Amino acid sequence: MTAATSIPLPPLANDRFLRACLRLPTDVTPVWLMRQAGRYLSEYRDTRAKAGSFMGLATNPQYATEVTLQPLDRYPLDAAILFSDILTVPDAMGLGLSFAQGEGPRFAHPLRDEADVAKLQVPDMDKLRYVFDAVASIRRALAPGGAPGRVPLIGFSGSPWTLACYMVEGAGSDDYRLVKTMLYRRPDLMHRILEVNADAVAAYLNAQIEAGAQAVMIFDSWGGVLADGAFQRFSLTYTERVLRQLKKKHDGYRVPQIVFTKGGGLWLEAIADSGCDVVGLDWTMNLGAARARVGDRVALQGNLDPNVLFADPEQIRAEVARTLESFGPPSAGSGHVFNLGHGISQHTPPDSVSVLVDAVHSYSRQQRGAAG
Amino acid sequence: MTAATSIPLPPLANDRFLRACLRLPTDVTPVWLMRQAGRYLSEYRDTRAKAGSFMGLATNPQYATEVTLQPLDRYPLDAAILFSDILTVPDAMGLGLSFAQGEGPRFAHPLRDEADVAKLQVPDMDKLRYVFDAVASIRRALAPGGAPGRVPLIGFSGSPWTLACYMVEGAGSDDYRLVKTMLYRRPDLMHRILEVNADAVAAYLNAQIEAGAQAVMIFDSWGGVLADGAFQRFSLTYTERVLRQLKKKHDGYRVPQIVFTKGGGLWLEAIADSGCDVVGLDWTMNLGAARARVGDRVALQGNLDPNVLFADPEQIRAEVARTLESFGPPSAGSGHVFNLGHGISQHTPPDSVSVLVDAVHSYSRQQRGAAG
Repeated sequence: MTAATSIPLPPLANDRFLRACLRLPTDVTPVWLMRQAGRYLSEYRDTRAKAGSFMGLATNPQYATEVTLQPLDRYPLDAAILFSDILTVPDAMGLGLSFAQGEGPRFAHPLRDEADVAKLQVPDMDKLRYVFDAVASIRRALAPGGAPGRVPLIGFSGSPWTLACYMVEGAGSDDYRLVKTMLYRRPDLMHRILEVNADAVAAYLNAQIEAGAQAVMIFDSWGGVLADGAFQRFSLTYTERVLRQLKKKHDGYRVPQIVFTKGGGLWLEAIADSGCDVVGLDWTMNLGAARARVGDRVALQGNLDPNVLFADPEQIRAEVARTLESFGPPSAGSGHVFNLGHGISQHTPPDSVSVLVDAVHSYSRQQRGAAG
Repeated sequence: MTAATSIPLPPLANDRFLRACLRLPTDVTPVWLMRQAGRYLSEYRDTRAKAGSFMGLATNPQYATEVTLQPLDRYPLDAAILFSDILTVPDAMGLGLSFAQGEGPRFAHPLRDEADVAKLQVPDMDKLRYVFDAVASIRRALAPGGAPGRVPLIGFSGSPWTLACYMVEGAGSDDYRLVKTMLYRRPDLMHRILEVNADAVAAYLNAQIEAGAQAVMIFDSWGGVLADGAFQRFSLTYTERVLRQLKKKHDGYRVPQIVFTKGGGLWLEAIADSGCDVVGLDWTMNLGAARARVGDRVALQGNLDPNVLFADPEQIRAEVARTLESFGPPSAGSGHVFNLGHGISQHTPPDSVSVLVDAVHSYSRQQRGAAG
């Protein structure tokens, strides 16, 4: 119906996710969930126990493949996402990543002064071979015996700014005092870190694409903690530097690029102009308002509050309907990928995810029927 | 010049803050800082040590007066703010507030089920007498010997939703799982808590006004964690319920009302229509964009990132100028109160605050000269 329909798509049993990313018509709204392979699933906890540690899990392509496929075996999700961590790149830079029991990630060698920053370099991608091996292994597992893949596989990375937050703070933070002190006091050092990060993230995502990732997502999880002005200079500029370097196609097929900035709703237009195909939104943004602001320049991904999954089935279905209605009926050239507005909680009842996925598919099918 | 200039103002040596709140012309942009009486000041730490504990400090009107005036003795700030805590109201409701060493606030009796919620009532304001005594004591200390007050005194409270977050979670949270589970699963219980909170906050702020607070501020510190839709239904509606009950005047003088929703930039128009005089903004919002969106319906307060205070004096001055320029030159009917976008960090070098306050006054004086 439009020129866009001539985009060649890879052979897949289910290509809804790729179609929605590229704003092509779909029978229903595709859905996947950030952190869908995670601790809320007992089979994940079993594999995690076998692996011994989180990094033991993430660095072993066989285990990473196993947990990536677990949610697909339970739920009719429309995409798989590589099981990994956003901090693999700084780990490969030599910062020494570890996960203490019950705490978040920690770096043994955070960047604190000029000497630390001077040493920083784009890491040898061979140090991240385990990630690319996992991508290839997951692709094989998604298409047993050479069949068309069940669903597309999404690769991902942290954004240059989000990586820098962890690299300077050395851990999570509630005030980002160290990284922002560097930003305001030594912007030269901050720009240097971000340049290296951007080039490293671009190389990392390109290698994931070469290994078989059929879409890629940049998580700017901490973009929203920046002041207006600082966000544009220190986060978005470097996300754009990544996007400019990314392969747009692999094997003749488009590789859609998703940018998700948590708390970035105020900067939506600028993010939509970054060169990405899809903008991820958290739950604070009304999808209809977002669509009105960016038109059909990009597809939108999101944005249910993960805490809705603690409600009863009827309430979950009502919130799914509200989210689909806020985006509104699909139209030629629009695209919506249903997701949460943040990673799923480890405390989520697994049955809630069934309710959610079924509700997205059935309600959005009705929506199309009513509109058609 | 406009009808607004006929608003009677209380006799004060410095009434810039009240004038800006009411969108009357001022010689310079007034400035005060959230949490200006706090741990970054050695004299505060001394008084805190004498008081023995945070609640010992907050519940003793003499100590509360002492620390409220400390930043005014150091810096030419344009307003004083009552030293207290946002959680005094739920404490008076019997939830048992305490502050563990090195941790945040904690309630011994959080609200977890229907029975807890059924018992909840607007507390007897006599239990909060220590707050109103502190307000009266600070007013006397600001006007020794019956002189006109040095600067106006701001009273404050947490918003109904922000209080509910702590009351249900029992402490701070990083995912708001318990309070949002109640919101999505038992909205009836959540609405009941919010009704009681709104009526309690209104009674509490009215009593502060009667005791001498010359402006009041509602801190919706956790409004920004809500989903679009939920924010309007569970936070803003109840802030409006507070505002409708507040005394607009005392002793014949207007008492400006400020609403600050951290992370609320996407809902700016709705907040500006809540009935308040001033909207507080965090640093993610561009002040010029905010002014364009709300026109001169309300004054704006904010919005420097507190982490700017870790930079060098020249850099602080540049960021102050950038903030004042983003609001733009003052015009008839506009109002801007300079502030941080969040409370000042306990790690702030006190000299940085001098630089900031002087920069706000001197740059904004120049701005007026250039515009006039």
